[in-house]
Amino acid sequence: MRAFTAAELAQEIQGRVVGDPSRLITGVATIEAAGESDLILATTPRHVQRAERSAASCILVPPGIAAAQKTLIQVENPRLALSKILSLYYPPSPAEPGVHPSAVLGREVRLGREVSIGPYAVIGSGVQVGEKVVIRPGCVVGDGCVIGPETILHPNVTLYPNMRLGARVVIHSGAVIGADGFGYVWDGHRHVKIPQVGTVLIEDDVEIGANTCIDRATLGSTVIRRGVRIDNLVQVAHNVSIGQHAVLVAQVGIAGSSEIGAGCLLGGQAGIADHVVIGDRAVVGAQSGVFSGKHVKAGEVVVGYPARPVRKTKEQLAALAQLPKLIDEVAALKKEIGRIRAEVSQDA
Amino acid sequence: MRAFTAAELAQEIQGRVVGDPSRLITGVATIEAAGESDLILATTPRHVQRAERSAASCILVPPGIAAAQKTLIQVENPRLALSKILSLYYPPSPAEPGVHPSAVLGREVRLGREVSIGPYAVIGSGVQVGEKVVIRPGCVVGDGCVIGPETILHPNVTLYPNMRLGARVVIHSGAVIGADGFGYVWDGHRHVKIPQVGTVLIEDDVEIGANTCIDRATLGSTVIRRGVRIDNLVQVAHNVSIGQHAVLVAQVGIAGSSEIGAGCLLGGQAGIADHVVIGDRAVVGAQSGVFSGKHVKAGEVVVGYPARPVRKTKEQLAALAQLPKLIDEVAALKKEIGRIRAEVSQDA
Amino acid sequence: MRAFTAAELAQEIQGRVVGDPSRLITGVATIEAAGESDLILATTPRHVQRAERSAASCILVPPGIAAAQKTLIQVENPRLALSKILSLYYPPSPAEPGVHPSAVLGREVRLGREVSIGPYAVIGSGVQVGEKVVIRPGCVVGDGCVIGPETILHPNVTLYPNMRLGARVVIHSGAVIGADGFGYVWDGHRHVKIPQVGTVLIEDDVEIGANTCIDRATLGSTVIRRGVRIDNLVQVAHNVSIGQHAVLVAQVGIAGSSEIGAGCLLGGQAGIADHVVIGDRAVVGAQSGVFSGKHVKAGEVVVGYPARPVRKTKEQLAALAQLPKLIDEVAALKKEIGRIRAEVSQDA
Repeated sequence: MRAFTAAELAQEIQGRVVGDPSRLITGVATIEAAGESDLILATTPRHVQRAERSAASCILVPPGIAAAQKTLIQVENPRLALSKILSLYYPPSPAEPGVHPSAVLGREVRLGREVSIGPYAVIGSGVQVGEKVVIRPGCVVGDGCVIGPETILHPNVTLYPNMRLGARVVIHSGAVIGADGFGYVWDGHRHVKIPQVGTVLIEDDVEIGANTCIDRATLGSTVIRRGVRIDNLVQVAHNVSIGQHAVLVAQVGIAGSSEIGAGCLLGGQAGIADHVVIGDRAVVGAQSGVFSGKHVKAGEVVVGYPARPVRKTKEQLAALAQLPKLIDEVAALKKEIGRIRAEVSQDA
Repeated sequence: MRAFTAAELAQEIQGRVVGDPSRLITGVATIEAAGESDLILATTPRHVQRAERSAASCILVPPGIAAAQKTLIQVENPRLALSKILSLYYPPSPAEPGVHPSAVLGREVRLGREVSIGPYAVIGSGVQVGEKVVIRPGCVVGDGCVIGPETILHPNVTLYPNMRLGARVVIHSGAVIGADGFGYVWDGHRHVKIPQVGTVLIEDDVEIGANTCIDRATLGSTVIRRGVRIDNLVQVAHNVSIGQHAVLVAQVGIAGSSEIGAGCLLGGQAGIADHVVIGDRAVVGAQSGVFSGKHVKAGEVVVGYPARPVRKTKEQLAALAQLPKLIDEVAALKKEIGRIRAEVSQDA
Repeated sequence: MRAFTAAELAQEIQGRVVGDPSRLITGVATIEAAGESDLILATTPRHVQRAERSAASCILVPPGIAAAQKTLIQVENPRLALSKILSLYYPPSPAEPGVHPSAVLGREVRLGREVSIGPYAVIGSGVQVGEKVVIRPGCVVGDGCVIGPETILHPNVTLYPNMRLGARVVIHSGAVIGADGFGYVWDGHRHVKIPQVGTVLIEDDVEIGANTCIDRATLGSTVIRRGVRIDNLVQVAHNVSIGQHAVLVAQVGIAGSSEIGAGCLLGGQAGIADHVVIGDRAVVGAQSGVFSGKHVKAGEVVVGYPARPVRKTKEQLAALAQLPKLIDEVAALKKEIGRIRAEVSQDA
């Protein structure tokens, strides 16, 4: 078991101990599950109250928090600090380097140093695998793919031929990169397939969730820029581009040729139709729908169906809640006006 | 071919034959496809009318149904009875016990009696496999997983390391259990990954659909309680808990740390944001959206975006349908009021 | 590198060259990426303007378009023509025929001529594989499946037992055909599974996207008719039928027993509840929801939640946008009526 003192942890994250710096901490836990030697995180006053009543003896908190009985580690960004501390206690188990004898390698595969290729992985011809790449069991890498250093493919990932992945990319199980874009022309009798001859370009430091699909471009590339985070079960269609550090939550769907700006956040199940342009740092709410060809301005927050600026949608939803009453009111007004009309006409 | 008499079937399901008890029945079919020796199910008067005109000679019905020309088997819960009868005619084909020579087993794997492990399955080190477990081809089971007795993994399922599955769990193809939760902290330059060091706990008698994803917890466990039924392409995020016997229809998405009560029903494509609490036996309608942090009371039925009690949403949708007319009415009232105002002011 | 003259391309697609027929063209590109020897497509006046400023020397256009400096190929349906031209420049790379020695074949498998079965594919007993079928690595084909000629299974596809696929079907990676339908009966204590003993019938010339799930029928067949196009991450439940040449965009979900007519278009993320009937050539908008048991007429275009004729939904959404103002107006009218009432009553 790993153990660090509160002082050691504080040093690691450039934090400050309030309480007993020699307190020994053997792990990180949730407030509910914590034992005496666990560190727990508390970021809000309510969290801190609950943390005070927990079994844990040490709490990671933002500056300015006090506690009666617990040792505190105060730090500017406690969640960021937690991520560093978790890496100390639970370092990723390194993949065993080497190519499993059952892996099938095509012709002219180039393997970097210290690659790890698991059982039953199938690597096509002409594939280039960078150093320290990990390809777990059951992955299929199509001919001509290029995989940058330290990239990890979890089990049962499929890369179609000619995909290009940067360094330190992580792709979770079941993800499919490079299936044909969904493009057809109706010839009067049937949907004729438009050959999808483009590729997918995934830059460095991208993470892609389980069972997510990123289609190859018709021509050119579907592009996922550096630092993008994509959750599970997301659909990215052909010729889409996703800007740097954008975040796509689970089950988002993006139709063909849409452009998502840098730093955007797309909430879960949001749908982006085709040929949409979403400006940098814009936010699309969960389940919202951005209609075909629309532009969302940089920094804007849009929600709803159709997606509109959040203030407008909230105003409309609030108004909708009043609508049944409004209908009754209008009916009453109508009657009253009828009565007034009768009286006024009588007077005339 | 298997064959049972109407009397034998009735006995099996504690039903009552009306008509010919010696009628020989060789299978179960839909009304459209039924041949003379098939049994068909009819639960509503309309079904029964159609069933009367079908080729089938025997109909499974609720009590109190009469029929002119067919033999009936009356039973309290005909759909439940059907499920028993289907098991008689189409018993599940048992997996061949034994470990296929191509399966790769890590160090210190413990296998129960009569396990069946298919070709190209990869079982990590320290895995415990209960008796009569079936692991079909192409499955990847990470190090340290524990799989309870009689559990079935269909082809190409992935379990990340350290997952815990109970007894009689069924996981369909392509499902991914234990991929990293989607947790990051922005450090000013990039999304820093919060190590996801928790696990997934799946209790007994759970069924999980094809290509469904259940993420591991950040800390602690994502929990799927006993008897839960999850359909295909569902997303269950980190630290979610799903109560006993809850039902999640296809393409549902549940964001981090939400709690779904026992016996809940989430309709297809419903979205549950993070930190939501859904009380026991509550129902969330298809495509509905429960917003972040909301509580849905036990037994409540909510629908719409945002999800509200079904009565309210229906009232609002009905009101919305009247809105275009209302706008015209208000315009007309405005004019009429203008005219009255003019007359009244003139009079004054 | 392949190269054709403008005249050769024009002949291939029955188009007409305006400009230099001997112009040598070595590939097809997007407007942005085109080099001098590339052909580009331009279908609208705006496209043509941009194409004129591109590096490409030859543009594929509809009839009646003129250009100052570029060679044009005019053709009635330029997108259809493009699909033919793409096939010339980028012919599909043929799979190597033969059965990889690592593929596992069950008993009594019948293989047609020139089949290609990749590494680690697992083919169950009694499977029939038509001629020129391609089964890529990691696919699992259950016992008793029938696969028509020239069908392609991309890597890591799973077919459950007894599926029937026609000719020239293409199934993309991770798709799961024939998992159990989601059918249970509550017996007072637990959800009892209704055995799903039906199958899936996929007719000729169907294409199915990555990670899409098509469930087997309870009884009978889930049916996908000839020429249907299904995108990624789509859910098709048990006993659904999809008519000829229908198109299902990504993340669509269709619940049990619904019938989709021939030539229908279901937009991305649309949800079709159970027992719905959608008439031929009807269109359901993206993210729209068709409620349980509804009928959509042939040729109708429905959108929204609930899905209604597009004109109605647009009218309602427009009205909703005016609602906050309307509420203020009604309040003002109410006051004005109150004042008039006071004056009129005073007069009386």
